[in-house]
Amino acid sequence: MANRARVGVLGASGYTGAELVRLLLRHPRAEIALLTAERRAGLEMRQVFPQFAPFALPKLVSIDDVDWLGANLDVIFCALPHATTQKVVSAIFGAIPATKVVDLSADFRLGDTAAYAKWYGHEHHAPDLQKQAVYGLVEVHRRDIKNAHLVANPGCYTTTAQLPLVPLIKAKAIDLDEIVIDAKSGMTGAGRAVKESMIFSEVSEGFHAYGIGHHRHMAELDQEFSLAAGREVTVTFTPHLVPMNRGILATIYVRGKRGRTAEDLHAILLKSYAKEPFVHVLPFGETPQTRHVRGSNMTFIGVAKDRIEGRAIVVSALDNLVKGASGQAIQNMNLMLGLPEAMGLEQVALFP
Amino acid sequence: MANRARVGVLGASGYTGAELVRLLLRHPRAEIALLTAERRAGLEMRQVFPQFAPFALPKLVSIDDVDWLGANLDVIFCALPHATTQKVVSAIFGAIPATKVVDLSADFRLGDTAAYAKWYGHEHHAPDLQKQAVYGLVEVHRRDIKNAHLVANPGCYTTTAQLPLVPLIKAKAIDLDEIVIDAKSGMTGAGRAVKESMIFSEVSEGFHAYGIGHHRHMAELDQEFSLAAGREVTVTFTPHLVPMNRGILATIYVRGKRGRTAEDLHAILLKSYAKEPFVHVLPFGETPQTRHVRGSNMTFIGVAKDRIEGRAIVVSALDNLVKGASGQAIQNMNLMLGLPEAMGLEQVALFP
Amino acid sequence: MANRARVGVLGASGYTGAELVRLLLRHPRAEIALLTAERRAGLEMRQVFPQFAPFALPKLVSIDDVDWLGANLDVIFCALPHATTQKVVSAIFGAIPATKVVDLSADFRLGDTAAYAKWYGHEHHAPDLQKQAVYGLVEVHRRDIKNAHLVANPGCYTTTAQLPLVPLIKAKAIDLDEIVIDAKSGMTGAGRAVKESMIFSEVSEGFHAYGIGHHRHMAELDQEFSLAAGREVTVTFTPHLVPMNRGILATIYVRGKRGRTAEDLHAILLKSYAKEPFVHVLPFGETPQTRHVRGSNMTFIGVAKDRIEGRAIVVSALDNLVKGASGQAIQNMNLMLGLPEAMGLEQVALFP
Amino acid sequence: MANRARVGVLGASGYTGAELVRLLLRHPRAEIALLTAERRAGLEMRQVFPQFAPFALPKLVSIDDVDWLGANLDVIFCALPHATTQKVVSAIFGAIPATKVVDLSADFRLGDTAAYAKWYGHEHHAPDLQKQAVYGLVEVHRRDIKNAHLVANPGCYTTTAQLPLVPLIKAKAIDLDEIVIDAKSGMTGAGRAVKESMIFSEVSEGFHAYGIGHHRHMAELDQEFSLAAGREVTVTFTPHLVPMNRGILATIYVRGKRGRTAEDLHAILLKSYAKEPFVHVLPFGETPQTRHVRGSNMTFIGVAKDRIEGRAIVVSALDNLVKGASGQAIQNMNLMLGLPEAMGLEQVALFP
Repeated sequence: MANRARVGVLGASGYTGAELVRLLLRHPRAEIALLTAERRAGLEMRQVFPQFAPFALPKLVSIDDVDWLGANLDVIFCALPHATTQKVVSAIFGAIPATKVVDLSADFRLGDTAAYAKWYGHEHHAPDLQKQAVYGLVEVHRRDIKNAHLVANPGCYTTTAQLPLVPLIKAKAIDLDEIVIDAKSGMTGAGRAVKESMIFSEVSEGFHAYGIGHHRHMAELDQEFSLAAGREVTVTFTPHLVPMNRGILATIYVRGKRGRTAEDLHAILLKSYAKEPFVHVLPFGETPQTRHVRGSNMTFIGVAKDRIEGRAIVVSALDNLVKGASGQAIQNMNLMLGLPEAMGLEQVALFP
Repeated sequence: MANRARVGVLGASGYTGAELVRLLLRHPRAEIALLTAERRAGLEMRQVFPQFAPFALPKLVSIDDVDWLGANLDVIFCALPHATTQKVVSAIFGAIPATKVVDLSADFRLGDTAAYAKWYGHEHHAPDLQKQAVYGLVEVHRRDIKNAHLVANPGCYTTTAQLPLVPLIKAKAIDLDEIVIDAKSGMTGAGRAVKESMIFSEVSEGFHAYGIGHHRHMAELDQEFSLAAGREVTVTFTPHLVPMNRGILATIYVRGKRGRTAEDLHAILLKSYAKEPFVHVLPFGETPQTRHVRGSNMTFIGVAKDRIEGRAIVVSALDNLVKGASGQAIQNMNLMLGLPEAMGLEQVALFP
Repeated sequence: MANRARVGVLGASGYTGAELVRLLLRHPRAEIALLTAERRAGLEMRQVFPQFAPFALPKLVSIDDVDWLGANLDVIFCALPHATTQKVVSAIFGAIPATKVVDLSADFRLGDTAAYAKWYGHEHHAPDLQKQAVYGLVEVHRRDIKNAHLVANPGCYTTTAQLPLVPLIKAKAIDLDEIVIDAKSGMTGAGRAVKESMIFSEVSEGFHAYGIGHHRHMAELDQEFSLAAGREVTVTFTPHLVPMNRGILATIYVRGKRGRTAEDLHAILLKSYAKEPFVHVLPFGETPQTRHVRGSNMTFIGVAKDRIEGRAIVVSALDNLVKGASGQAIQNMNLMLGLPEAMGLEQVALFP
Repeated sequence: MANRARVGVLGASGYTGAELVRLLLRHPRAEIALLTAERRAGLEMRQVFPQFAPFALPKLVSIDDVDWLGANLDVIFCALPHATTQKVVSAIFGAIPATKVVDLSADFRLGDTAAYAKWYGHEHHAPDLQKQAVYGLVEVHRRDIKNAHLVANPGCYTTTAQLPLVPLIKAKAIDLDEIVIDAKSGMTGAGRAVKESMIFSEVSEGFHAYGIGHHRHMAELDQEFSLAAGREVTVTFTPHLVPMNRGILATIYVRGKRGRTAEDLHAILLKSYAKEPFVHVLPFGETPQTRHVRGSNMTFIGVAKDRIEGRAIVVSALDNLVKGASGQAIQNMNLMLGLPEAMGLEQVALFP
């Protein structure tokens, strides 16, 4: 790798694509060498995202028109719609096996082919790659990521829920059968999809739950929580939509096991994350607001006592487009390339 | 009472006061005869709420300057800050004992003086009245309200939680020890208080929980759920703030008892509310959005199956200023005056 | 006509259609007898607009499936996309010539066929009807509307600009060559169209102008201002989008003619609208906010002095879906049916 | 100066103060050495702005408790309320005359003491400093700023209006007597002041004008436009409030002089700003959106043709807290310290 890694972003016309570009433009060791978009192929990035007008960027091209060998990419980010990535990644590795890939879709998050087929309704198109893929929640799988070839970047909801819960589960500190995750997301979590339910007047000045009982992120939670627990764990999870652009907040209801109090749970988290650059545990009793992590790669976690003896309420917040997607993807890239993990991710949150 | 009841609104410069005026202006049997406001005394209502500019309304006066006898009021709504109402209501009943009062504050919601002292930090100033007051959740206490002299209008969060839960508790259909209420409210729920945490840029584009473990509405929930259950019930309740003006939504996690499924719970609610004008139970599996009840006195309730066997997710939504406050207050007034319950409350929700 | 006029709403799945339904449900002399929608034909109205779940309404049908004779409609509202209405209205009048039609599209607003062809890029499909159509700005054309068969309901921007400007132009009080209209609209002005530029995250937390120099509403302004002036008038008009659902505000820059001051202009407007139920002129120097007319059929107008001698700033505000569309359409219906003009339109604005 | 300039931020508990901290935390040659706040003195910055929780920052102190000599500051930013700065800056220069000051208030923006007295209603408390102060619109006064001791950072509205207009005025390309500036600002432009008119529910879902005919920013515009023109210039200026946090957009109506077309005006701006890092002129006919400069120090300017012969519409957009306040202040600091002008200001806009 030269001084700057040559980076490709597939699916640059979506929000996670744009967020990758925002962050990579200021990454001292990266150079944006390729941007793809299908319907917008042939356009300049500024026509799709005017905020990039002041910057020199490659023109958008179709994936089909990419000369993979000639492009000479060190890393590729796939910010493509779910289910389309499998074939693309297979093709990439066929052409340029040494390139590293961070996939932001859900395609490689589930290690189990049966689970994939169950939740996504069809067989996986690249089962071999599925097995190789490393689940990219850095704070949990850092070691494996460093040596990975293909990283499956976690979902935004699942990152928000896992960061507070995995240490508690590993510590056997909470009852595994009574975890309730009530999650709330800003609208960019749904991407730039053009649907009636996403237009401004259908979203503004209102609040609602969706996907109750059957949201696909559940599969990821099951996999990772079960791994952490060493037994099967199934949680209750309800996502909601908040009339805001960015931010995701999970209110998590747990019961301490073997006498663990809310204070004990707080102490476990505080210790687990003492050295992590992107997870900040608030003082006991304080809980986070999404606005205070906006635009940054930080996760804020708080723990409070429930008034019911033995129960605690854990709240975590992050920016779904940064730590919940593109920031975490760059964190993965940094590890895969042997760069300092926090490089290019030091932006301070934008509030107000 | 003449053809139109003479109505006074104490605290007309706040949001629930303005909402009472909005509704009363179109109530065929009410006439706004008195509006009070302390800091704004002497102003016209249009100077405090410009939307009323086209209407003739009494000038705002201080409560101290009201000639209660001369005012000749049939009903008085108290939309005063919590803890100030007790003395005002005592004074009113001293001067004009036949007048009926609907109090929108929390002052008379708790029937138990010890509970009041515990949650509010001081002795009740009018314990006799506290005993007479009827808790004004119409769908539960309709009969008592009809004969009441003083009605304590329920809180917005508690109305949202009680309407779906009371029938399930009464039917002994759910586990009383595992109820989790995750509630989300628009900003008008906090009133027109001028605090840093309420200014636009502190609220917009963000989401957070507050009052975890110690919100005063818990006392009301305890009282009413325990009454419905015939034993003490304590629930987990977490309120959140949504960057929107109106609307409150509660996501409620319950476990069916004695084999009751989510479908069974839905059937109980459907039956309980079949004839209620202001509670609408959605088809099984559908859940409500706050925007679809905006500006109306309706409550929408939905029930969905959790993926965990035996658990259900119940979601309710209402407009915190209407069914959660002023609309419910007028519903109470109608009952107290022997008028049709829905009179003046037939507005269709304003969406978008 | 029976006690209740039988009303049809064509295009009931859009926002102006829904707003007609909201208002008609509470109109004492109207009955909703027909609702059409093309892509949603066969659905219940509650599936398209859940706020109507508590009400009995006809199922949505395709226009092609309507039996016009059998439907026996007294009035039809066309809330269809621009350019589709012409043929539909021709067909309706062919089948049931006595029915009255209020068209909310732009199809019949321009009386001049050449102007229509210029602004819309094609010949008018029903030039005979175009000539018969009466322009439905009630405060200006009330007399003609009473006898009209087909009323072209004005656009939201143009209503906002005309109500303050027409009386000033008629009074020859302002310089006709220096009128600048800077208009700002909420997102429902763009309808329920599903376009990338309308999704929440493209709209929220931002502001922009659009259609500079070539917005179609200009043609309507030219026509009506020229009519009022008795000579050709061309104004500068720039629309902008505000991240809010409802409301439109025009800031209008004018220069007094023959020594007319801002105070004089205010006096002219005050006098012009002294008896109008839906136009309220604020005290001199005060200017309106869109939020104070939300959900109502009111227009608020204010006049302030510019610091440049002889110039004034006139600001008007209304709810684009009510006085800017469906409310005005019902006002037209009332006149056409000989009903009191304000019937069913007395809702008080919803603020906050 | 050491490798990192020691920087003080007076008034760190307001929004422009927080924005300075956000930017300075990532400035490679700056070190935050002092933070003051009066009501919040004694608190940690994280208690006032939780987004800074992960960073080590000095505790907030009262200005009265600062040991100016001991603090050893190279630069001081004053983000204090208007009218309080004059005395503070006098005191600072009395104690540490070599320190450089960038004042973000309006106190030193007007060079003329009579103009100050007229617009602010009292004599200036530091008339000598007022004369020394350099007006800090970098693109216009860069040379003077480099040698300045005290820079008066421009207002947000005036920056938005001056960047497009000053080059056109200097080029004698537009009629000076017909300039209309219709400006729209997000709510952070009003600071963190706790007033009823600023609470969420008074702002959300609405739009209005304010300060018509007498906004203090007019004095700045008069001064700078007159300087650019070499004669007295008075413009029409109307500010409005948009329900969004950040962003300011000015729609400016001008008439070309001596045959200048909109295209000519565009060419002048394109040339003027060809080498400026923080002003980007869009292709002719395109106009900017505030969201595309959010969080960045960029100004976007567009020019479009009016349909009235000889008139043009110029639109400019910037982030009121960055280029409209704290970013520009750091741009000024960089110049005053001899650092590269764009240092620490390269953040890419945050959209969505």
